[in-house]
Amino acid sequence: MAYTRMTAAEAAALINNNDNIAMSGFTPAGVAKAVTRELAKKAEAEHAAGREFKVGIFTGASTGQSTDGVLANAQAIKYRAPYTTNPDFRKRVNMGEIPYNDLHLSHMAQELRYGFYGEIDWAILEVCDIEECGNEYHVYLTAAGGISPTAARLAKHVILELNSFHNPNAKFIHDVYEPLDPPYRKAIPIEKVGDRIGVPYVVIPKDKLVGVVECNIPDEARAFKDSDPITEKIGFLTAEFLVSELAKGRIPKEFLPLQSGVGSTANAILGALGQDKQVPDFNIYTEVIQNSVIDMMITGRVKDASACSLTVSNDCLMQVYDNMDYFKDHLTLRQSEISNSPEIIRRLGVIAINTAIECDLYGNANSTHISGVKMMNGIGGSGDFERNAYLSIFTCPSTAKGGLISSIVPFVSHQDHSEHDVNIIVTEQGVADLRGKCPEERAKLIIEQCVHPDYKQLLWDYMKIAKGGHTRHNLPAAFAMHDSLARKGDMRLTDFAEYVK
Amino acid sequence: MAYTRMTAAEAAALINNNDNIAMSGFTPAGVAKAVTRELAKKAEAEHAAGREFKVGIFTGASTGQSTDGVLANAQAIKYRAPYTTNPDFRKRVNMGEIPYNDLHLSHMAQELRYGFYGEIDWAILEVCDIEECGNEYHVYLTAAGGISPTAARLAKHVILELNSFHNPNAKFIHDVYEPLDPPYRKAIPIEKVGDRIGVPYVVIPKDKLVGVVECNIPDEARAFKDSDPITEKIGFLTAEFLVSELAKGRIPKEFLPLQSGVGSTANAILGALGQDKQVPDFNIYTEVIQNSVIDMMITGRVKDASACSLTVSNDCLMQVYDNMDYFKDHLTLRQSEISNSPEIIRRLGVIAINTAIECDLYGNANSTHISGVKMMNGIGGSGDFERNAYLSIFTCPSTAKGGLISSIVPFVSHQDHSEHDVNIIVTEQGVADLRGKCPEERAKLIIEQCVHPDYKQLLWDYMKIAKGGHTRHNLPAAFAMHDSLARKGDMRLTDFAEYVK
Repeated sequence: MAYTRMTAAEAAALINNNDNIAMSGFTPAGVAKAVTRELAKKAEAEHAAGREFKVGIFTGASTGQSTDGVLANAQAIKYRAPYTTNPDFRKRVNMGEIPYNDLHLSHMAQELRYGFYGEIDWAILEVCDIEECGNEYHVYLTAAGGISPTAARLAKHVILELNSFHNPNAKFIHDVYEPLDPPYRKAIPIEKVGDRIGVPYVVIPKDKLVGVVECNIPDEARAFKDSDPITEKIGFLTAEFLVSELAKGRIPKEFLPLQSGVGSTANAILGALGQDKQVPDFNIYTEVIQNSVIDMMITGRVKDASACSLTVSNDCLMQVYDNMDYFKDHLTLRQSEISNSPEIIRRLGVIAINTAIECDLYGNANSTHISGVKMMNGIGGSGDFERNAYLSIFTCPSTAKGGLISSIVPFVSHQDHSEHDVNIIVTEQGVADLRGKCPEERAKLIIEQCVHPDYKQLLWDYMKIAKGGHTRHNLPAAFAMHDSLARKGDMRLTDFAEYVK
Repeated sequence: MAYTRMTAAEAAALINNNDNIAMSGFTPAGVAKAVTRELAKKAEAEHAAGREFKVGIFTGASTGQSTDGVLANAQAIKYRAPYTTNPDFRKRVNMGEIPYNDLHLSHMAQELRYGFYGEIDWAILEVCDIEECGNEYHVYLTAAGGISPTAARLAKHVILELNSFHNPNAKFIHDVYEPLDPPYRKAIPIEKVGDRIGVPYVVIPKDKLVGVVECNIPDEARAFKDSDPITEKIGFLTAEFLVSELAKGRIPKEFLPLQSGVGSTANAILGALGQDKQVPDFNIYTEVIQNSVIDMMITGRVKDASACSLTVSNDCLMQVYDNMDYFKDHLTLRQSEISNSPEIIRRLGVIAINTAIECDLYGNANSTHISGVKMMNGIGGSGDFERNAYLSIFTCPSTAKGGLISSIVPFVSHQDHSEHDVNIIVTEQGVADLRGKCPEERAKLIIEQCVHPDYKQLLWDYMKIAKGGHTRHNLPAAFAMHDSLARKGDMRLTDFAEYVK
């Protein structure tokens, strides 16, 4: 083909200080990895020579070490949105070094198109195949849908990483669809989990394609901790709750598509649901597919799955590529604004299950900040799903750090999801079904059902000093537990009397 | 017609203790008013006789004195959702007397159908006309769409209030549509503000209709305070901001549909936009239409309007009824789950403008609770719109109570909208455009742009003691301003040193 081949270093050399880069991928899956590694080296060289060098990075979600990690360490990021999970990046964000804008993932592509973040200089996309088609290239994405078509359309220039680690078979699971913007947007015509509404490729006008970097780099999807007795108990209780809702007719007999967050709790919940024979074979409509979903697709327990990314181990990814005759009919990867679309999530009646860092007595949830200040990862898709779900479920272990921290507190130290968006809280202690409950009833239920025994009395004590209103609080003491953790190292040592005025 | 006529008292006599009642209306507009007045009397008589008498009340939004007011005063409410604005009700909620469940308005109808709130015994609907049609009656709603078709379908029994205060012409502005529930829900096919997708009537099976109460009772829509120099400044600044976005191409040249909350600020904003010749004639996609919109429709400045209710003065309502030849082509009333549908709001690119009680330095907003405990009204539709808007704007005067209160605080005392859902904050001091800003930048911008001069130094002082992290806070001092208000009567007297540990 007529395109220019170049090395990753040659591509990186073209990128200037202050440029904005939009990238393929969603989670470390499907992120371009070659050019950014070289870009970090260029940044270090520029800094060593006394010159400024920073770029803005926009992606579908988080990335891996080869993007957020190396660029953060090279102090080469002037701006980052919408999500990250990288430890090196996190450290530097919490040092105040990187302006990080933690966004709902469904907002990223459309807000780039709306022009809220300025011009996009570069799109860097990881692809598994390239076809020439008149004045365009049709390029095929790898393990994620992300914001790639928007990145390609908005960017002044495009660099492709043709990564032979991925199999060109990946093209059979992509449904590439970019909505028009208001006032011309149409209904997104997905009415079943498996509906395909777009094309399998991203279009790149020939005059935008600067070069193709051929490479072979494994995906950097994370390995998740195995489940432990706590997460298994949460999984069991969540599954038991859903089964009882099914029995009561409050979940339709066909069941509903599931979204579950990323990590070992999500795996434990899926595992428990999978084993419960009262739950019919079900579908997944989510943002991230983990190994456990692929395993359950192979057995037929999960029928159809739709997501933005295949965030699986590399051997699991190869298993998908090698069994494309099966997966092409059951697995669809979409753009993040489609996988996380409020429109589709509410229409399909997705049951959303995400983990919280902490919840408060009234059902508000914190998904992002440790002690109100330290960014963990970001809100990700949790708001997209929970806000629009048929049932909004948050899970967390009742304690953290061996009991020093209660995950249920009087007042969340940062709030990402309001009481209006949270139906159910599950800890390993039990399930609090908050639907139809006023604040007073919610507080009682959460203490009784979800709080660890070590903290029950403390939270009843808070309710004793909390003054009403519709919602009861004692504001000067609302963060006493957080402050005790900070000053005494243990929330159990909280003395509310120190705070009450 | 064959239906049974009965008095309101006869209808009320049929309703039993503990029954659940779903009603027509959205805001006081279109709420049934005759039977509930008698029901309050029945409750008082029952209580006087030593018997329990309470009912559950579900509506589209708030109601007027004839529903929430009299029933609250009669201590006859066992449960209430999803929204209220009635002062008598508010007082009793804040005394802890009534379990009140403050919900997103778009959730009410679907969650009733999902079975989350138990069985519905009665639907009481205000109608302007009744037609017989085989085994059904086709009944025509009055000034609001509300949750009426769902109420009628779920209820065991239906009572109609045929209120001759309303004109049967009201039928020409209703588009009655009730979606199927998952897993059978389809795309809601509205792609323009004026699209009609349903029928003009609600269907009542004949065997459900218990009786028709003929009455003539004026609607109880509230009169709003006139705008004052503060709300006018907010209106001017908001309009100026939107004009500048239009000039920068970040709002498309056709402009976008507006939603604006209820009250004098909303009127001031619409007034300012209407006067700005750089804004083309525009459309409204909102939940509540106030007088000012009708005025602007008559001049053609507002082209098409879609809402759930006509919350206008009674003379304005008559003006609409009397000019139906014009309004039938330009005005559509919908069910609350359609007027407030995330699907439609995001598709149309609605610009959402709502008032906040307070905002914090990071862009979180409180729409519901005074000092974290006293319920004002409820979240209403603000979350439905702001969460899905093209641009999410919150407005508030920078101070309240003559300066004793700053509306910008270190930490909101109750949070209904997270930083992820708030693009722009406007006070009479200025506009803070938070898009693409990290928390540190947001705090600086909000203090510089939006905070009243009396409070600027105080909030800079907070930032000095706030420790980082991605977000900076001093949790024990986060509510110092609220506590100073409670203890000293003035937020300006805040001494953070009293709180810092």
